Amino acid sequence: MVPVAPMQIDVAEIGDERIELTAPLAQHVNDKGNAFGGSLSSIMTLACWGLMTAKTRAAGLTCDVYVGEITTKYLKPIEEDLRVTAWFVEPEEIEGFVAQLHAKGKARLEMKAQTTLSDGTAAATLTGRFVAFVK
Amino acid sequence: MVPVAPMQIDVAEIGDERIELTAPLAQHVNDKGNAFGGSLSSIMTLACWGLMTAKTRAAGLTCDVYVGEITTKYLKPIEEDLRVTAWFVEPEEIEGFVAQLHAKGKARLEMKAQTTLSDGTAAATLTGRFVAFVK
Repeated sequence: MVPVAPMQIDVAEIGDERIELTAPLAQHVNDKGNAFGGSLSSIMTLACWGLMTAKTRAAGLTCDVYVGEITTKYLKPIEEDLRVTAWFVEPEEIEGFVAQLHAKGKARLEMKAQTTLSDGTAAATLTGRFVAFVK
Repeated sequence: MVPVAPMQIDVAEIGDERIELTAPLAQHVNDKGNAFGGSLSSIMTLACWGLMTAKTRAAGLTCDVYVGEITTKYLKPIEEDLRVTAWFVEPEEIEGFVAQLHAKGKARLEMKAQTTLSDGTAAATLTGRFVAFVK
């Protein structure tokens, strides 16, 4: 069983350089009644993974995408439904990333994600290195 | 619903300075048939949280324990059941941590966790800053 089903994640929006996911707080509540830190890292990781996977598909490639390393900062307790966005740290490097996938079958890229409260402030941020392997 | 139930985590061992958790791979498989990175961060975070919570209880305190920041490194794909250990980076600081909780009602400590393969090698590591608040 993939652990993603109980997370009840929806893709609210996906574009060339940005993805937005949502998930109900009720599925991610910790012992303190706010969002579980592990869930936040998971959803932000999935957001990056989804955006990179979409980018490789748009380039005509079928890839396995792996997370290599993440740093998550938990800034505020979250007591509302989760809204997570992810994007490429250096969008100008995407072209080189795709070219390297075609040439070497493997490439990596830095990505960022954020869990944003309804008042617009960041409640958690993730910076990660993600690696794609052409299948 | 707490997201922990579907993770099927068991406490294999808990001592003064170390905790060991296990979980079946089948509950944490990704699209590539190995362990989902988000699950690994979650379980390693939970291991640290559990050990710090146990430590505060042993000191006669009731605390909320929060994760402040984590860095997870994913070193190897995992195709076996998960075994996660966590410990305090500086065990000699635990006494000061407990003293500060008594004095100020809040204290933080660095913790580490590792997901270890059956051959003894590290497949993923987590370093994190955890904060306890006396309730």
